[in-house]
Amino acid sequence: MSIADLKGYSVPFSPRGDSQVAGAPPWHFGVDVLAVNFQTDPEQIRKLLPEPLELSRENPGGAYVWFGDWQGLWKGREDMLSLNPERCLYTECLIGVRCSHDGKEGHRVVYIWVDKDFSMMRGWFMGFPKKIGKVALGTTNRHLHALNPGMPACGPGSKYAAVCEAHCERLVTASIEVTREASPADLPKPFGTELYHTIHYPSADVDGNTVPVAHQLIQTVSSKPQFGQIWEGKGEVTLHTAQFDEHYDLQPTSVDSAFIIPVGFSILGNKLVHSYDYGPEF
Amino acid sequence: MSIADLKGYSVPFSPRGDSQVAGAPPWHFGVDVLAVNFQTDPEQIRKLLPEPLELSRENPGGAYVWFGDWQGLWKGREDMLSLNPERCLYTECLIGVRCSHDGKEGHRVVYIWVDKDFSMMRGWFMGFPKKIGKVALGTTNRHLHALNPGMPACGPGSKYAAVCEAHCERLVTASIEVTREASPADLPKPFGTELYHTIHYPSADVDGNTVPVAHQLIQTVSSKPQFGQIWEGKGEVTLHTAQFDEHYDLQPTSVDSAFIIPVGFSILGNKLVHSYDYGPEF
Amino acid sequence: MSIADLKGYSVPFSPRGDSQVAGAPPWHFGVDVLAVNFQTDPEQIRKLLPEPLELSRENPGGAYVWFGDWQGLWKGREDMLSLNPERCLYTECLIGVRCSHDGKEGHRVVYIWVDKDFSMMRGWFMGFPKKIGKVALGTTNRHLHALNPGMPACGPGSKYAAVCEAHCERLVTASIEVTREASPADLPKPFGTELYHTIHYPSADVDGNTVPVAHQLIQTVSSKPQFGQIWEGKGEVTLHTAQFDEHYDLQPTSVDSAFIIPVGFSILGNKLVHSYDYGPEF
Amino acid sequence: MSIADLKGYSVPFSPRGDSQVAGAPPWHFGVDVLAVNFQTDPEQIRKLLPEPLELSRENPGGAYVWFGDWQGLWKGREDMLSLNPERCLYTECLIGVRCSHDGKEGHRVVYIWVDKDFSMMRGWFMGFPKKIGKVALGTTNRHLHALNPGMPACGPGSKYAAVCEAHCERLVTASIEVTREASPADLPKPFGTELYHTIHYPSADVDGNTVPVAHQLIQTVSSKPQFGQIWEGKGEVTLHTAQFDEHYDLQPTSVDSAFIIPVGFSILGNKLVHSYDYGPEF
Repeated sequence: MSIADLKGYSVPFSPRGDSQVAGAPPWHFGVDVLAVNFQTDPEQIRKLLPEPLELSRENPGGAYVWFGDWQGLWKGREDMLSLNPERCLYTECLIGVRCSHDGKEGHRVVYIWVDKDFSMMRGWFMGFPKKIGKVALGTTNRHLHALNPGMPACGPGSKYAAVCEAHCERLVTASIEVTREASPADLPKPFGTELYHTIHYPSADVDGNTVPVAHQLIQTVSSKPQFGQIWEGKGEVTLHTAQFDEHYDLQPTSVDSAFIIPVGFSILGNKLVHSYDYGPEF
Repeated sequence: MSIADLKGYSVPFSPRGDSQVAGAPPWHFGVDVLAVNFQTDPEQIRKLLPEPLELSRENPGGAYVWFGDWQGLWKGREDMLSLNPERCLYTECLIGVRCSHDGKEGHRVVYIWVDKDFSMMRGWFMGFPKKIGKVALGTTNRHLHALNPGMPACGPGSKYAAVCEAHCERLVTASIEVTREASPADLPKPFGTELYHTIHYPSADVDGNTVPVAHQLIQTVSSKPQFGQIWEGKGEVTLHTAQFDEHYDLQPTSVDSAFIIPVGFSILGNKLVHSYDYGPEF
Repeated sequence: MSIADLKGYSVPFSPRGDSQVAGAPPWHFGVDVLAVNFQTDPEQIRKLLPEPLELSRENPGGAYVWFGDWQGLWKGREDMLSLNPERCLYTECLIGVRCSHDGKEGHRVVYIWVDKDFSMMRGWFMGFPKKIGKVALGTTNRHLHALNPGMPACGPGSKYAAVCEAHCERLVTASIEVTREASPADLPKPFGTELYHTIHYPSADVDGNTVPVAHQLIQTVSSKPQFGQIWEGKGEVTLHTAQFDEHYDLQPTSVDSAFIIPVGFSILGNKLVHSYDYGPEF
Repeated sequence: MSIADLKGYSVPFSPRGDSQVAGAPPWHFGVDVLAVNFQTDPEQIRKLLPEPLELSRENPGGAYVWFGDWQGLWKGREDMLSLNPERCLYTECLIGVRCSHDGKEGHRVVYIWVDKDFSMMRGWFMGFPKKIGKVALGTTNRHLHALNPGMPACGPGSKYAAVCEAHCERLVTASIEVTREASPADLPKPFGTELYHTIHYPSADVDGNTVPVAHQLIQTVSSKPQFGQIWEGKGEVTLHTAQFDEHYDLQPTSVDSAFIIPVGFSILGNKLVHSYDYGPEF
């Protein structure tokens, strides 16, 4: 059999290409984000930035959490909501940090949990170091609040929490108390800076060759985002201690801002920034 | 210890009343529903209507599925979205049938799956025969569609599916192709008819007394609903065969109508209609 | 339709009785338990004992956690392992306390989490105040350890942990370090004492009648247990703080004993001890 | 920051190496397998064998399903059962086919579902094309059966089923009716033949370079297996149709044999067989 007779952007390959865990870019997203931007110890961020990345020059202690309720489509299955919504809807919690590359401001997602396999693997193909977790967001489907006799419509004074759990531990909680409507122009960086990620697939070579199968620093190339109705507020974030997660080290020292951000965009693909022929110790 | 020192509308009772699976009515809901109304064999409906309920006189073969993305609050925790959204958000799939009682038109949920324990038990307290299942809806958070470069805004031509699984089996799928915006006045019955449910708690008496601990026919008392933007469309529904579920018997013979319905309302409580001192055979 | 034409020990009732969440007693169980017996403040136990239950006279501060990997069958479906094992296998974490009734020593499960709906509801029918949680046990299927090149066979020196999570929070962890093989005669109370539980179904009466639909103190009647190979060890248990669970109050002051206990038994049913015409405040 | 200051066999990299989804080989396993060996249309197998793999010469239509309850450890965390068992216990369903390479008999897992992220990613590092699914096995922890008053001890006449679900669809069911105890010598091939897998990581290059980041045919190198008590029986297997899985094409034409196999072994790593500079169409 020729591989040309198998189909799939990703494994499992199959005769018709339907078994693959996730299809090819461009990937089209709509997401409702609860974002909290905060300050942490720059030395803790530095520990998470491999060369040639460096601390942000503008905001060396800048970090953020994004809780998101996502709708994500791959090429050829833009109609997935009409086929099996379970395969394009997912929830996610990520922790990002500011950084710079060659003098250019950027950011990087360092820890991230998602509740579906297709999103996990698609993330890996883009350098997001995703693991499986469970996420709940109080901001989901909030157009319903105005109809619910037990709560007010979303607006100043509304309070929402979000929570992320994995491996039977609570990992991250965040909350926002809405203060005012905001516009896209109000959104602070990292919006508008470059996103730098690591694509890393380890070697399991039996002869002890530990050079990774692939190890690249890449930049994510996205389309211009489109925004819905944005809310600003007072934010809180807690990074909980965990047996086998180290995000706690990025403990917030203060909160900069918090937003509810409905946004859509396409990820067009990766641009190679740097190749490594080695990886971290293990 | 006096029971008066324990607290809880429901078990587990605890000193402060925080451990309980679900709190007391009134219960306040906002929900985004994907509803498909269909016709099935009235003889199959008849088999699911215990005395004194009878077939609907107007629409004896009338049945419906509701897939719903729910926000449900209990008394004293109306702020749950700001504390742990995981404890008030849930998804649900239900199958209902038309019926009548004493000449009055009504309806009844005969099979229903939900993804959270608090909703399952609160449902039991109201006579919904809930089991745990997994549900996904393509209509969730659809205000994001207009932002997603890969799909059109919700409107005529939009297609959405929904799916329900339990015990490793796909049980129900439904879909809608939106044709037009609609108004609350367009919503057909069972909207506006009474809801009749069975509260039944079996006996596990060791001496063979099989009289249920409780067995009542009740009527649900709700507040007037408030509606958001409603869409009408062409609907489809499939009831899949299953090893240990009998909903397949309600197979649709034709589809009457389909709607996307954002709606909010309060359930105030139950009104006793009939008491039984016996239960079904087992 | 006569109710006699519907079937089901529990809802949902259906024509053939296959839709019910759980079938009738006797219920037959095999379970692999990781048990840690500990001491806590008797005043905290007292707060969880409704009249007419009282503190244990022998061991007023006696409490225990059981993590269990269960196989549970109901009448008429003793062959469930050959049909859908997902419907009879489940994992559970429970916290129990010693108590007494009318001078007789007993015990009572005060908090309990389980991962399946059929076990949750069957538990409610017996007065176990079950909620849904996620449980993992290191002792599961341990006959495999002797085959795994990475770990020793179960025996002195083996260490195992267990963990329970619900609503995105870690609730309970326990562990054992095996010291010796033990026999059924080595198992301390509460083995051999009576089990007292509360069956409580709240009223949702719209007219404000808060008298519970049912509220009984019952005693569980079981068959004589059969034991497999028992291991004793040094135990640890941690009750974690939680937003909406109060088990933390039962914090261990010391650990009495710890065991791995494979055991089988049947639960024949409930024996009524006391009826209440009132319930706790809410 | 030098990458040497980050740690991790796999991402997410972190200062202490605890955040990684899975650690390095050797990987040590104990597993309880329910295996059913069957015949399918060799032309369907051929479609799943990329060059240079060819159909098995001995058994061109040979295929199998393995349902497994796994305990899997990585280097440096051989004590995981005593820390968080949730991170080393998992369940899995796989479908494999016979094949040959350069005249040597082999086999290959073509579709596989697992319930945990660490197993999914570790599988990818070895070329198993894993997706997330839910799996239940009737053979789990079967030493308890002899203690359960509702079922017989495992032995001739015992019947067990297993089921796999993903994305809200039932995908695979299998069952065995035990006929006799067997020995390792009774286990048919593919036991004892080589295992050939594809490691494939797709490119998301924004400039349209579709050459995979990595694409290799590798051979798995394992230690000699150690077996527990093996049972042979009459097997059945059903591959269910699915919206987005193509395993149905491997429909069984007859069943060859079925076994319950407790087995332990180490996977030492991969041996490169072939490199590709292209991938399948997508």
